[in-house]
Amino acid sequence: MELFLLSNGKISGDSALLSYAKDALQEMIARRQITSAVLVPYAIIRGNYDERAKELEQSLGIKVSSLHHAGNPAEAIGHAQCILVSGGNTWMLNQMLHEQGLIVPIKRVVRERNIPYVGWSAGCNVATPSIRTTNDMPIRNSVVLPSLGLFPVQINPHYIDAQLSGHMGETRDERIAEFCAINPSESVIAIREGSYLHVCDGQLSYFSAKGEGFKIFRHARATQECQDTKALAGLVPFECL
Amino acid sequence: MELFLLSNGKISGDSALLSYAKDALQEMIARRQITSAVLVPYAIIRGNYDERAKELEQSLGIKVSSLHHAGNPAEAIGHAQCILVSGGNTWMLNQMLHEQGLIVPIKRVVRERNIPYVGWSAGCNVATPSIRTTNDMPIRNSVVLPSLGLFPVQINPHYIDAQLSGHMGETRDERIAEFCAINPSESVIAIREGSYLHVCDGQLSYFSAKGEGFKIFRHARATQECQDTKALAGLVPFECL
Repeated sequence: MELFLLSNGKISGDSALLSYAKDALQEMIARRQITSAVLVPYAIIRGNYDERAKELEQSLGIKVSSLHHAGNPAEAIGHAQCILVSGGNTWMLNQMLHEQGLIVPIKRVVRERNIPYVGWSAGCNVATPSIRTTNDMPIRNSVVLPSLGLFPVQINPHYIDAQLSGHMGETRDERIAEFCAINPSESVIAIREGSYLHVCDGQLSYFSAKGEGFKIFRHARATQECQDTKALAGLVPFECL
Repeated sequence: MELFLLSNGKISGDSALLSYAKDALQEMIARRQITSAVLVPYAIIRGNYDERAKELEQSLGIKVSSLHHAGNPAEAIGHAQCILVSGGNTWMLNQMLHEQGLIVPIKRVVRERNIPYVGWSAGCNVATPSIRTTNDMPIRNSVVLPSLGLFPVQINPHYIDAQLSGHMGETRDERIAEFCAINPSESVIAIREGSYLHVCDGQLSYFSAKGEGFKIFRHARATQECQDTKALAGLVPFECL
């Protein structure tokens, strides 16, 4: 199984999509001789699916077709060489994956046929067991929480320690600590902007464009700041990857 | 019907709970000769229900009993002189209101028996038709979106325009715009820290401790910055209040 679980799409307003992960993605594209990818675009609300696909073509140098053009989306997933799952609204994305009957097809091609999965922001959230650690607003009237579960631990993307001056809402740390209080047997891996986890052949590695670490949140334990994935050994059952 | 819909509990780390609304709350307490209130504490995750009740007693100068001590919570709501709904996690609060069978009892005493409802942050969210405009993390495995609907329009509490440097997640404006894109017939009133909406006898007023305005978000229309509730006339069916 190969997963790229990225915190975010663009590292700054004018950077290219996935630029900070470009070297690793190009290595994968060359290693696997990938010539095309399917984009799962459903998280995008106020943007254009086809424009996002074009941006990715330019960024990755391969053909990218958005799944909304497919007459049979599940079949298109079955024929994909690579699956790209865009950020946007996590609730919308997860609901569409369920409504379009894509949960099982994506799990199958990624797990059983070793097709790589590249997801950023919302696309990273839906790769975990559920979307309970999303930062997004639940804008849909109907909601489903269970998600793809390709990666066995909840991830919080776009993780940030800072708090805006004068803002009295919960900090991100408090929100994640609340998650751990309500779900004491689970843990949360919080990844900062410009960073990603890479699962490949049962190995888990971590990269940050800014040289920053990630955090692990667990109930009744101090939050742990980590620089590499050794700290995840007891947390992530590598045999599942 | 009388509602206090407050953006937040504390205006700074060391201020007293609800301090910025104290004058208006004291006016209501005197006008209605209120001697006690019931606290709905379920949004609090990593705090103590009884300590929150004590804080409110000190702040408001009336007896406050937390609903978790009541053998029959619905009955306790039925006998309340005033209902205080604390902030915390909106998902947890809304789920508990449903699980404890409190949705109908609260609606009844507030609408039919004119018992005042004071809700801040999560307690403000659940007073609207649904919790689709919460900022909180959906930490519960099960979720319910419909809420009390005492106020007919979605509110986004803790509203803030600013964005932390380097953070590439969606801005609050983008999240609310996504809500409006998916729910084009609805609108969202965004209230900043230290501000509240007050519904009393079919009148709707607005107060901000910092003299700031609120915002109205609607689909396919420019976001409107407002200083008073005149702008809400076409949006809020006052006859429902």
